[in-house]
Amino acid sequence: MKNFVVHQLLYHAVITHPEQVIVSDGKQFTFRQFYSRVVKLADSLSKHGVKKGTVIGVLDVNTHRFLEMHFACSMLGAVLHTINFRLAPEQMVYSMVHTGDEWVFVSDVFAPAVKPLFPKFPNWVLMSDNREQSLPETRSAFHYEDLLEQGEEKEPAGAAQVKENDIFSIFYTTGTTGKPKGIQYKHKTLLYGTLQLFHHLALHKYGARVSSRNVYMPLIPFFHIHAWGMAFFPIYVGAKLVLPGTADPAGQMALIQKEKVSWMNMVPTQLQMLLDQKGFSNINVLTGGSPFASGIAQKAQDAGVNFSLIYGGSDQLATAISVVPEEVEPDTAEALEWRRVGMRPLPLVEVSLRDKSGNEVPHDGKSLGAVW
Amino acid sequence: MKNFVVHQLLYHAVITHPEQVIVSDGKQFTFRQFYSRVVKLADSLSKHGVKKGTVIGVLDVNTHRFLEMHFACSMLGAVLHTINFRLAPEQMVYSMVHTGDEWVFVSDVFAPAVKPLFPKFPNWVLMSDNREQSLPETRSAFHYEDLLEQGEEKEPAGAAQVKENDIFSIFYTTGTTGKPKGIQYKHKTLLYGTLQLFHHLALHKYGARVSSRNVYMPLIPFFHIHAWGMAFFPIYVGAKLVLPGTADPAGQMALIQKEKVSWMNMVPTQLQMLLDQKGFSNINVLTGGSPFASGIAQKAQDAGVNFSLIYGGSDQLATAISVVPEEVEPDTAEALEWRRVGMRPLPLVEVSLRDKSGNEVPHDGKSLGAVW
Repeated sequence: MKNFVVHQLLYHAVITHPEQVIVSDGKQFTFRQFYSRVVKLADSLSKHGVKKGTVIGVLDVNTHRFLEMHFACSMLGAVLHTINFRLAPEQMVYSMVHTGDEWVFVSDVFAPAVKPLFPKFPNWVLMSDNREQSLPETRSAFHYEDLLEQGEEKEPAGAAQVKENDIFSIFYTTGTTGKPKGIQYKHKTLLYGTLQLFHHLALHKYGARVSSRNVYMPLIPFFHIHAWGMAFFPIYVGAKLVLPGTADPAGQMALIQKEKVSWMNMVPTQLQMLLDQKGFSNINVLTGGSPFASGIAQKAQDAGVNFSLIYGGSDQLATAISVVPEEVEPDTAEALEWRRVGMRPLPLVEVSLRDKSGNEVPHDGKSLGAVW
Repeated sequence: MKNFVVHQLLYHAVITHPEQVIVSDGKQFTFRQFYSRVVKLADSLSKHGVKKGTVIGVLDVNTHRFLEMHFACSMLGAVLHTINFRLAPEQMVYSMVHTGDEWVFVSDVFAPAVKPLFPKFPNWVLMSDNREQSLPETRSAFHYEDLLEQGEEKEPAGAAQVKENDIFSIFYTTGTTGKPKGIQYKHKTLLYGTLQLFHHLALHKYGARVSSRNVYMPLIPFFHIHAWGMAFFPIYVGAKLVLPGTADPAGQMALIQKEKVSWMNMVPTQLQMLLDQKGFSNINVLTGGSPFASGIAQKAQDAGVNFSLIYGGSDQLATAISVVPEEVEPDTAEALEWRRVGMRPLPLVEVSLRDKSGNEVPHDGKSLGAVW
């Protein structure tokens, strides 16, 4: 590995798993077809002036188009701003102005809501299969599929010049006070951080274990640390990826059954909704982002759901994941409790608990501290 | 992770798995006890003048003492020369003189053979439990356990100053022509390279899959890329490690049964010898280093041995491991053949096949080329 950049993963995938598929929006793309779309998009954007450092906002749920944007931006050295649609509208606008989005890609689902913003940004792209839909009346506006078709199937000239310490993406989190905070992710640290998470899950036998034979569906949105790394991991490992788009729990359940989804990530609320669906079983689930009640844990276990819990600040990527320690029998109540709250730092991540003055607190299971 | 150095793994292990054990030479050490021995050894060596950059040769089979040397050298910033005892005697001496060993640690097994070398090197340490054994009659000579006991249980002052781009170790390979070639491994590249190998194995469901619940025993000697990374991996993942010392196949078999060993690495010849032992079954085996005949592959499969094959030059660490591709059913003759010869580059490793002029050859399954 000479250069640890995002689009390197796609090169590897096309060589090793050209026929593996990405399912999205009722369609299916092989890795080879996906690669072809990505380079055409990148070439087209390059012709329209996108270059290293251009900031591009994307406002979409988890679709193949959003995923294509990841790899096209990487090849161009453009900075992908994954717009956080959970922010209040004025905060979302703040994030787009603050980071200087030169292009905004918006799906037809979100387009009506951002109509007032059209004049604020120079270039708009409407992400939809329907090219008859009316475009934003702005200086420059495109249908995504038209834009893609304008590109030739060749890599952008600068793809090899993108370096692992370049910024790949930016994400605005709410934080707890004041204005949203922008976090910049470098190619290298982002890939190390997110792949480390999956390596950790691969090494622990009980919980949301991953392998190259799982079928993956991320319910965590791409804007949030690239769906906790799921924009990268299935490509990296050569596994099938199913993108849920706007599917509701019943629609997700239909996808799970049709596509044989076996691994998902989501917040506890989403898990609760899926547990109410008929046939939700034999799935590995990584959950986190909010507290996890023991009632849901038991219900998940009873339904045959193998779960793990993740903890980490958005700026730190993942820092800890719940595990069943080696000395604990996997099918016991103790094991369930470990999976629910038994956090263990990822290998080579240092975690310390400190008091308000920054001093470490005793490791006695009683003292309270903040995670550093 | 702030600083990707070898001894960082041990810190992590002591915090997360203090009671996990290393079995060696009829004894058992918890990670906590092991850490205690390592820091005492490091402190003692520091008092005897070992400092950053001091080159220390170790001539031993796989024992806890050799493993302790890994972590003590790391904490001191000393360079560990893992002496290759498969070299011809004059080549071995060449390697020790060429790299400038200031200290030589030798086990009692090898001591008689290297007696003629005693005057050539200033400091000798005899690695043995028997402190009555006569020491080399040189300017400076110690019994390992005496040396260790002279140390206090505290980390060397410089441990935090060792940086990930410092040289951790050096290993002389025969290469194919001329004198042995020395390969220097930096902390960072060595850990990335070897842990990447195990992450890859964790992600593939069939073959020599690793997990935190395996019991590991390396038959590949530490001198050869630290037993293909096994000096680091069980510590990193918090798993039980069994060190075979000088055990022959029957002795290895006794250890496998007593300690419930479930994962090993070895060359095909060693696998052949173990397959002749009664009860050798249900083991995951990573093999490589020489061609693997289809007869042994079948015999291994019949014995319930899940194996994978590794390929890589000593300077590149591992580059490729055989896998059962996702589209191949695991229990078929096709899958067996894939595991025997179906090499796949590790994620993010680029492999190309080139002809004598350095041009890539076609990927047609027929053209011959050298691996770059």
